[in-house]
Amino acid sequence: MNIPIARSDIHIHLSEEHISILFGDSHKLHNIKDLTIPGQFVCSERVIVTGPEGSIEDVVVVGPARRETQVEISITNGLSLGITPPVRMSGNLENTPGCILIGPLGSVSLKKGVIASKRHIHMHTNQAREWNLSDGQSVCVKVPGSRALIFDEVIMRVGEDQAQEMHVDFDEGHAAGITDFQSVEIIP
Amino acid sequence: MNIPIARSDIHIHLSEEHISILFGDSHKLHNIKDLTIPGQFVCSERVIVTGPEGSIEDVVVVGPARRETQVEISITNGLSLGITPPVRMSGNLENTPGCILIGPLGSVSLKKGVIASKRHIHMHTNQAREWNLSDGQSVCVKVPGSRALIFDEVIMRVGEDQAQEMHVDFDEGHAAGITDFQSVEIIP
Repeated sequence: MNIPIARSDIHIHLSEEHISILFGDSHKLHNIKDLTIPGQFVCSERVIVTGPEGSIEDVVVVGPARRETQVEISITNGLSLGITPPVRMSGNLENTPGCILIGPLGSVSLKKGVIASKRHIHMHTNQAREWNLSDGQSVCVKVPGSRALIFDEVIMRVGEDQAQEMHVDFDEGHAAGITDFQSVEIIP
Repeated sequence: MNIPIARSDIHIHLSEEHISILFGDSHKLHNIKDLTIPGQFVCSERVIVTGPEGSIEDVVVVGPARRETQVEISITNGLSLGITPPVRMSGNLENTPGCILIGPLGSVSLKKGVIASKRHIHMHTNQAREWNLSDGQSVCVKVPGSRALIFDEVIMRVGEDQAQEMHVDFDEGHAAGITDFQSVEIIP
């Protein structure tokens, strides 16, 4: 059960409303690189994320637009910003902290939406069925190497629109010594 | 087998020679806080650590002076500095990268000494004997919580001058969701 693993650096998903405020009316995001998950892409657009204790510039926008704006940071990023992000699955934004977003044409005072993404595995329904895994299930994942560890509490995200990839944030990736193009193993 | 765990932020151990260059001839480090490990202390002295791509200010000096200067950073710190630190046990500095150190009275161009500390457990000889653990041994450590994980490759540092504490860097601490005064468990 080997699957590729990717480290997610700080990035942001924007609502249509916030895209308009930050980049101008009717602005369309520019896809500069498709991501592994079908339909998701890195945009040329960048924003500044600001918290009570600091800012991080050049934060990547990931498209397409979403229903709600979501800022995914690491705990380490949070120390720079002065924000403690709760560890959440994407889209679960109730009672999360906000921040200020600054774009070339405007700024947004976000009331909520800052999270540290809970580690998870994207997997297509067919593969999950073959391995007897289901959406929402928690699994353990073994990472080999000089910083070998076993991630517990890894959530399966299974669907027809998924491609196989485990996602961790930069803190987790660095803690496990993860390198580019590395594979990890789901263990029973 | 519960032991307290502590996250080490970026810090530096200095040789007498480098203390003199950075802070002045015959300068003595000022102890502002004893650490758990007997004889080790946080100093009031601070330095700037500079790499090819950036600097980190206000880096804590940990005393007392050592035979060789050693800069302990996280992989995330390394991205800011433009330095990729190898994962090493303290004192194992052969073929490690250098950096520039800037103090109030001078600067040092360090040829080597930048590492990401390999996670480890300090333990007094008596306790280690009771638990059948030996110096240099690698053990597994379970961290509970929302970011639960098992650290493999945790090195025992056993001695008469040790007190019981596990040390991880900031990346590892954040990846495991470690909080202040948390305990972890050595597992068979």
